[in-house]
Amino acid sequence: MSRLLACDWGSTNLRAWVLDAGGAILAHRSFPLGVQKLEPGEAARRFADEVRPALEAQDLPALLCGAVGSNIGWITVPYVDCPADLTQVAAGLVQADDKVWIAPGLRCDGLDGACDVLRGEETLALGWLAADPARAKGRWLICQPGTHGKWLVAEDGRITRFLSAFTGELYAVLSAHSILRSSGQGRDLAVFDEGLTAAGDGDALLNRLYTARARVAGRGADQESTADYLSGLLIGAEVAATPALLGLADAPVQLVGDAGLCERYERALVRRGVTVHRHEGEPAVRAGLLALAKMRGLL
Amino acid sequence: MSRLLACDWGSTNLRAWVLDAGGAILAHRSFPLGVQKLEPGEAARRFADEVRPALEAQDLPALLCGAVGSNIGWITVPYVDCPADLTQVAAGLVQADDKVWIAPGLRCDGLDGACDVLRGEETLALGWLAADPARAKGRWLICQPGTHGKWLVAEDGRITRFLSAFTGELYAVLSAHSILRSSGQGRDLAVFDEGLTAAGDGDALLNRLYTARARVAGRGADQESTADYLSGLLIGAEVAATPALLGLADAPVQLVGDAGLCERYERALVRRGVTVHRHEGEPAVRAGLLALAKMRGLL
Repeated sequence: MSRLLACDWGSTNLRAWVLDAGGAILAHRSFPLGVQKLEPGEAARRFADEVRPALEAQDLPALLCGAVGSNIGWITVPYVDCPADLTQVAAGLVQADDKVWIAPGLRCDGLDGACDVLRGEETLALGWLAADPARAKGRWLICQPGTHGKWLVAEDGRITRFLSAFTGELYAVLSAHSILRSSGQGRDLAVFDEGLTAAGDGDALLNRLYTARARVAGRGADQESTADYLSGLLIGAEVAATPALLGLADAPVQLVGDAGLCERYERALVRRGVTVHRHEGEPAVRAGLLALAKMRGLL
Repeated sequence: MSRLLACDWGSTNLRAWVLDAGGAILAHRSFPLGVQKLEPGEAARRFADEVRPALEAQDLPALLCGAVGSNIGWITVPYVDCPADLTQVAAGLVQADDKVWIAPGLRCDGLDGACDVLRGEETLALGWLAADPARAKGRWLICQPGTHGKWLVAEDGRITRFLSAFTGELYAVLSAHSILRSSGQGRDLAVFDEGLTAAGDGDALLNRLYTARARVAGRGADQESTADYLSGLLIGAEVAATPALLGLADAPVQLVGDAGLCERYERALVRRGVTVHRHEGEPAVRAGLLALAKMRGLL
């Protein structure tokens, strides 16, 4: 029976599954081998020495997506330009080693002549689209929160454009290294909502960011509550600005990813009157990797 | 002859002058004693042991402004609420020790029900207003760039409102701790201008920030050019958003502060068609401290 070693290999983690041709999971392991922690050349060696043996997958064809295809990963896989569907992404697969292929990321035109890029989110989004025939037609707005949030627009099965947001990384560096530092989210939703209010319509963020300092210095708020306030302020600003820039201000949002983070995004979106549908990310990534592998005849 | 020990004591530095009653500088020293580096209680001791002796000012009345009046400074001096003129600020002076007074900061209503605060900029702005009789009437928009940029509106000699921007600190933490890190500004004005363009009208900053990553990953720009791009992007966003929020989108801007930073702000403002007048900051702070001291009869 033909099998695939399917890997979502990002900046901070590697998740690997052995799948059969029907998508059933025969084995699964996660590894703390995010490419940000790897030395040049280390990805190939650790994949052969650790990942394959742990899953008893020495001889299986392997398909990898995510930051492993970037200049800090295994090899740099050229971006595919939008619009792109499964066929175009499959055509962009690059063979990195014997029985190892890596999926390309996507590139599209961004704001005011800038460009935008992503790696890994394309495979999840295409897998999500492929998982239900009803998604093959029409327009879908797919939001994947994270270090760099990605909002993808799919039309008739193709990813036509997308927009990134620096939200997660900005939250992390401000919480760790600025006057807004605090020891972490207390999950105080009242403070999170205060941050959502302070986000306004996502405009004037530099001024609004300073309110996170002024509420402590000028109103005596607890410094430790800054994390929840900042989380609300940044997520609120992202969800207020991004769909509108894509021309989809009132469209339903398909929210995919980490449960705790998606909960906060849902709260922010619902408050703006937006309909939200939540989905698990891992099944979608697996479906995308399997579909790409089949299209290239890897299994 | 009566003299004053006038100090601008901020987060990162202390600048001290001995002034005569006419404002002439009799002595001047700077000290790396920013309050962010001091332990609790250390400010009083180092002021007595180092600052006063270095300026041969053991017995002079001293007036201090800036972060030294905050909860990480010498003592916490309550904010004065806007609108406020020299009289109100002078009335808010607090005696911290024998012959030592500290000026209060200002507080005002901020965006969407938030509050805003500053410390030190009030003294500079009031000194700037007092330095020329023509400034006693009419409306003035005074911009003081820095770690936290401050835009103050003065009307008929009173500071009626102000708005802070997190620009300088955001630039610093992103340049040091994020995927946008680079070894520092190369003073490449073409790249700075590219950042100004990417700032748009100051909206959607979370999305625009990601263009600083995408231009490297997706277009092959040099990572080391990120500092100048980020500088343009953030300053551009600040100058596009802040005057408009104060209802003064097209008003001339009085730019006061560090020469290199003011040069970049001027470039960003002029590009938006705004008239800019630049002024030195130190004479204005000295004038403010002297005026406050006289009003309280300290010399």
